[in-house]
Amino acid sequence: MTDPSPDAPWPNTQQGIRRRNLSLVMHAVVAQGPLSRAAVAGRIGLTRAAVSTLVDELIRGGLLVELGPERPGTVGRPGSSLTVGPHGPVGIGAEIGVDHLAVCAVDLHGKVRARAAAEGDNRGRPPEPVLKELARLVGEVTSTARGLGLRPAGLAVAVPGLVARDSHTVVRAPNLGWSQVDIGAHLRADGPEGMALSVDNEANLGALAELWIGGDPAPQDFVHVSAEIGIGAALVVGGRLLRGTHGFAGELGHVPVRPEGPACPCGGRGCLEQYAGEEAVLRAAGLEPGGGRIGLLAGLADDGDQRVRRALRGAGSALGIALSGAVNLLDPQTVVLGGALSRLAPWLLPSLERELGRRTADPQRPRGGSVTVSRLGSQGPLLGAAHSVVQAVLDDPAALAGRAG
Amino acid sequence: MTDPSPDAPWPNTQQGIRRRNLSLVMHAVVAQGPLSRAAVAGRIGLTRAAVSTLVDELIRGGLLVELGPERPGTVGRPGSSLTVGPHGPVGIGAEIGVDHLAVCAVDLHGKVRARAAAEGDNRGRPPEPVLKELARLVGEVTSTARGLGLRPAGLAVAVPGLVARDSHTVVRAPNLGWSQVDIGAHLRADGPEGMALSVDNEANLGALAELWIGGDPAPQDFVHVSAEIGIGAALVVGGRLLRGTHGFAGELGHVPVRPEGPACPCGGRGCLEQYAGEEAVLRAAGLEPGGGRIGLLAGLADDGDQRVRRALRGAGSALGIALSGAVNLLDPQTVVLGGALSRLAPWLLPSLERELGRRTADPQRPRGGSVTVSRLGSQGPLLGAAHSVVQAVLDDPAALAGRAG
Repeated sequence: MTDPSPDAPWPNTQQGIRRRNLSLVMHAVVAQGPLSRAAVAGRIGLTRAAVSTLVDELIRGGLLVELGPERPGTVGRPGSSLTVGPHGPVGIGAEIGVDHLAVCAVDLHGKVRARAAAEGDNRGRPPEPVLKELARLVGEVTSTARGLGLRPAGLAVAVPGLVARDSHTVVRAPNLGWSQVDIGAHLRADGPEGMALSVDNEANLGALAELWIGGDPAPQDFVHVSAEIGIGAALVVGGRLLRGTHGFAGELGHVPVRPEGPACPCGGRGCLEQYAGEEAVLRAAGLEPGGGRIGLLAGLADDGDQRVRRALRGAGSALGIALSGAVNLLDPQTVVLGGALSRLAPWLLPSLERELGRRTADPQRPRGGSVTVSRLGSQGPLLGAAHSVVQAVLDDPAALAGRAG
Repeated sequence: MTDPSPDAPWPNTQQGIRRRNLSLVMHAVVAQGPLSRAAVAGRIGLTRAAVSTLVDELIRGGLLVELGPERPGTVGRPGSSLTVGPHGPVGIGAEIGVDHLAVCAVDLHGKVRARAAAEGDNRGRPPEPVLKELARLVGEVTSTARGLGLRPAGLAVAVPGLVARDSHTVVRAPNLGWSQVDIGAHLRADGPEGMALSVDNEANLGALAELWIGGDPAPQDFVHVSAEIGIGAALVVGGRLLRGTHGFAGELGHVPVRPEGPACPCGGRGCLEQYAGEEAVLRAAGLEPGGGRIGLLAGLADDGDQRVRRALRGAGSALGIALSGAVNLLDPQTVVLGGALSRLAPWLLPSLERELGRRTADPQRPRGGSVTVSRLGSQGPLLGAAHSVVQAVLDDPAALAGRAG
């Protein structure tokens, strides 16, 4: 998380340039601080005088603090090191999972400062009690954060479903049984006042987590595949999340694998979910369907259950076929298996990579897509949610400083 | 073509801001001119004084001219209308087709000012004679343009093959039988000196033509499908061409349609080209294979040949299956059939739209992808090539003015 987001607005006006420059200062200090004003100026290509004015504004807004003179005894006025203030903003991330709710607070350094979670099956539960419980957890985490002297700067919620672009509305979350649920309206009624709210698909937030904190260096062009009950993907291109016209990009689960295959509730036939979705895998393994069984599958596969291993090999092949379409279309650097899928990676990868390899390798061009497994695993979406708030603060610190002032 | 490209560099320095502002002035005058300095200032949000300095520089560089005083008799110094100079730059576009070579010159208004073409089968011809002939046509068009008082500003070449990103090298053009051909080296030996050169895939340039001159308003998020012998696609997202890590994005022809289908030279099985490529369609129609038969297929289908119509229905279904994967992944506004495919659209569309509809429509979300047919047809790639040079001039007029000065 060292650069302004490529989607952050670029300035056309003096005011816009000032806001952009405030962001450059914040990103430099967070990435490389503590830094003197002169060092910041050197890194972002502005004069020391210009940087001093920006820094003063960020100090007044409580975003930066001075650590006191550095290198005392050198000639001239000693430089004072800048760092992120101890009472700075935190991003609040929340996750609505099929079998859990989780909330965390992440500071500008990317450290988790508070957490709360509640296990329990959310399938078929109406939105009201789920979101009331989530609001309670958010309240718990924000008051812990405030107790630490931190300022919650916004709340981002990860949901296992399609979210209409630039909205708070879950259009469809089949695993929860929700459709057309306005998360914003529920949380505004029950939740903490005055915090900026955003709602996004869990695969998107998992992919953003991968981009911001998943690797070093993080890939800038990748397909991120995750699964809980359905199979979702998110596409990152040039460091940007590709959302699609309606916000519904990444529906890998409905890419056709065998066009005359089993009917899918989406209206198609032979969609990837019919071969590699949790229910299909449980069925192929002779196990009873039911949500949240990925741990069970992983355990049985670890223990050498041949039927489960065969079912996972089949799922891996289907994933490889669908992903070979995605790789041929997008030419990404890599495919990342994230979320619950990362737990099953040892059993999925051999057949997945075989299909992907023979369908995308070409003697006259480089191999189309390597596959990596996320280090963040099932924490990705929750961390991505909190980090999306942090990123927004770093991309436009003036907005927050303005509110604080 | 009214806005700076979203990929044009954004400024961090005073010099960068000046170049960006020169571009804003050029785009405003091209899109809405003739305009007075005051009108330009109003449209781009700069002061009249700042705009005057920029305009003076563009006039010195030969990019703009003043038409003389407007509204004589009004109070104060009369404003003078600005327009693009008659001796301004033109973009030279060139196309290497399987059965033709074509070159054109397009001015800053987007008008074609000169053309040259040569019919003839290029399959299996070595690069040297083809590129020598192309260089001759480029020479013809540039000297016609110079005779009209125009200044060729750069040459962009469309090729039916994969081009390595940010290079002049055709990695693979199976329809020509070329691999690893450095177009730059050949054209620098035979072609006009001193012109900036770019080389790109014909599907990419066709898609850019669609974006810049294809519609009003042009879609900003679409999948552009074209075919000559192979099937290529280009993805435009947020007004940007999605090129992929190696420059190989858009390989729709190798998206699997039936994973156990016929072997494809790419190493995969059941790729789209095995069902909807020209050779597959000719075979299904009982016709002899051979390049450039799309006109023949269209003619026979027009005349009611049932076997050809059935073959095209099958190709349409396969296209619909592969495109439903692309639409599920990318959630575009629309799918555009361009290039030679636009000629076959009446016979492909019904089955294509049926497959796409049932695999992407979902009761709880809007229809995933409508299909439109390009108005530019087979002219798209050539026009896109010339316009890519024009767009580069408008995005950074200082580069050209600097060279001219």
